[in-house]
Amino acid sequence: MSRFFSSAHSSLNAYVPGEQPKNCEYLKLNTNESPYPPSPSVFEVFDKFDTSSLRLYPDPECVDFTEALAEIYGLPKDRFIPANGSDEILQFAFNAFADPDNGVAFPDITYGLYTVCCSLYNFKQTLVPLDSDFRINPEDYRFNDRMIVFANPNAPTGISLSLDDVEKILKYNPDRVVLVDEAYVDFGGESAIKLIEKYDNLLVVMTFSKSRSLAGERVAFAVASPEIISDLEKIRYSFNPYNLSRISIAAGAASLRDREYFSECCKKIISTRAYTANELMSLDFEVLPSSANFIFAKHASLPGKALYEKLKERGVLVRHFSGERIKDYVRISIGTNEDMTRFISTVKAILSEANQ
Amino acid sequence: MSRFFSSAHSSLNAYVPGEQPKNCEYLKLNTNESPYPPSPSVFEVFDKFDTSSLRLYPDPECVDFTEALAEIYGLPKDRFIPANGSDEILQFAFNAFADPDNGVAFPDITYGLYTVCCSLYNFKQTLVPLDSDFRINPEDYRFNDRMIVFANPNAPTGISLSLDDVEKILKYNPDRVVLVDEAYVDFGGESAIKLIEKYDNLLVVMTFSKSRSLAGERVAFAVASPEIISDLEKIRYSFNPYNLSRISIAAGAASLRDREYFSECCKKIISTRAYTANELMSLDFEVLPSSANFIFAKHASLPGKALYEKLKERGVLVRHFSGERIKDYVRISIGTNEDMTRFISTVKAILSEANQ
Repeated sequence: MSRFFSSAHSSLNAYVPGEQPKNCEYLKLNTNESPYPPSPSVFEVFDKFDTSSLRLYPDPECVDFTEALAEIYGLPKDRFIPANGSDEILQFAFNAFADPDNGVAFPDITYGLYTVCCSLYNFKQTLVPLDSDFRINPEDYRFNDRMIVFANPNAPTGISLSLDDVEKILKYNPDRVVLVDEAYVDFGGESAIKLIEKYDNLLVVMTFSKSRSLAGERVAFAVASPEIISDLEKIRYSFNPYNLSRISIAAGAASLRDREYFSECCKKIISTRAYTANELMSLDFEVLPSSANFIFAKHASLPGKALYEKLKERGVLVRHFSGERIKDYVRISIGTNEDMTRFISTVKAILSEANQ
Repeated sequence: MSRFFSSAHSSLNAYVPGEQPKNCEYLKLNTNESPYPPSPSVFEVFDKFDTSSLRLYPDPECVDFTEALAEIYGLPKDRFIPANGSDEILQFAFNAFADPDNGVAFPDITYGLYTVCCSLYNFKQTLVPLDSDFRINPEDYRFNDRMIVFANPNAPTGISLSLDDVEKILKYNPDRVVLVDEAYVDFGGESAIKLIEKYDNLLVVMTFSKSRSLAGERVAFAVASPEIISDLEKIRYSFNPYNLSRISIAAGAASLRDREYFSECCKKIISTRAYTANELMSLDFEVLPSSANFIFAKHASLPGKALYEKLKERGVLVRHFSGERIKDYVRISIGTNEDMTRFISTVKAILSEANQ
């Protein structure tokens, strides 16, 4: 730390992303990337891209992208805001809507960036414990005096909340923004976008990093009432008006318009997830019911950290979290069928070694 | 504004970027873009890019990029931090180093984002008037109790400060960060990077949007002591750990390594700037001495706003600012020789019409 660092940040603990090894020696099942390449229409964008156009700024309004969003989701384009990854839009949203006195409430077990966002701006945070089945109970969110944030499906559990339950939380907090982070919704959750015209306090965040195979390009968006979007745009224009590159705008739009490829990839991941979950259960794992592109699982006798380490020794990266309630688990991203067959046979080898 | 917008932002006025028309009907001399395409080595990056790799996150450390920076600037790589455009790194820096009590001091006439950054975080701002020649006087910056920010060359004046004067400001403020925004330094200014090992309070910000023709790709960086960089990294990882896309990292590195093309483009712009300034002076313009890729000029009788409008009617976009001290001026980005010949003949037509 330099002697100049603001005292406001004296207790800031930055987010720690999953390992990103620089070589390809690992089977990477640790950061919930898609095992499939982006849509062929994204390849076409890259093939035909006019590199000389890079001398010019991108369109700060990202109209090509928001028009594609409007088309695909059947809503007016003033209900969308583009972002350089969903982390960025989460930051804008916390900045815009955290209650100055009461801050933000979110589950005790969830995406690690929420607590970091609060620290960064010194917002008060209320950690609402998940129930004993690691589920969000809407009855625990009767606040109406602070911003509410949750991931649906939640991470790293993979468990999804029904739209009825999401609606309860919206009704319990009519005077505060309820942010639903739907990074993983395309793998079996129900999107709250359906409720967007009914609740003016709903803000849904989506990313292209998972189901659209564009983690490397940094594309995301949020959808809400035009008023909420206009507040977020005010933050975006104050922060970084040109947040999306020219090719990100084009790639995002192209990816959206290829509905068929998108739906195929999601289906394949859902099917591979079912295979992986069944195999793990047959190997004495407890597997939480996942609606995401990952599985959160705990073995009957092998602790999470040991399993993570033994897998890594054998060239397979998964993610382990050290939090008290979840330290027995590992989070396994769903790869291709071949990836997961290799993963399961590696787990079998580890277990048979442990039993010797 | 929604009824949910934080009261902290009640007086926030977002940054207003220059016009970005969606068609190409204008000669665009309004947002200081380069008239030249990026380096041929950037074209090669795009040609050879492995689009399927987009399914994976970028390297959050951006090692390929910081290694290229280290190589080109002859400094260790822990002195650099990458950013999604220099606006982003400015935000991180204000967030990290603004004094909690006294905020930030910067010139009254300068890049508009500085005041927006202060508003966004509710930092106190001290506007230090430029002198009557629109110059920064180092004697006006004897604070040492607040962060100091200035652009060198300054915008929209184009006037540069000598390294001796920069050094004075560093010495007057040993206990606070002095941020030098060098967006335009490659067109004739002296970079404070030379002082980076001598002053631990110096933070230099540079962008690839001007001299490296990469405005559309969003690449920038800052250079400072390893301690200041480590604080900024803490903010970056708290805000958006994957802020640069895979192809931005590669394009940034490739652009840096092509020193020859870079230097040629800068030389051409400097030469075209001299031609343009001379022509304008012969047409009764007062032209501030520019070390940037733009000219700030005022006609003896035609007010800035009228000139801006008449140019726009004739298909030429320049930028006009409404601030009291500068409302008689227009800012003209330097294009190719052909662009500026067209610009000058358009100005001549406007003046001859005005004289009829």
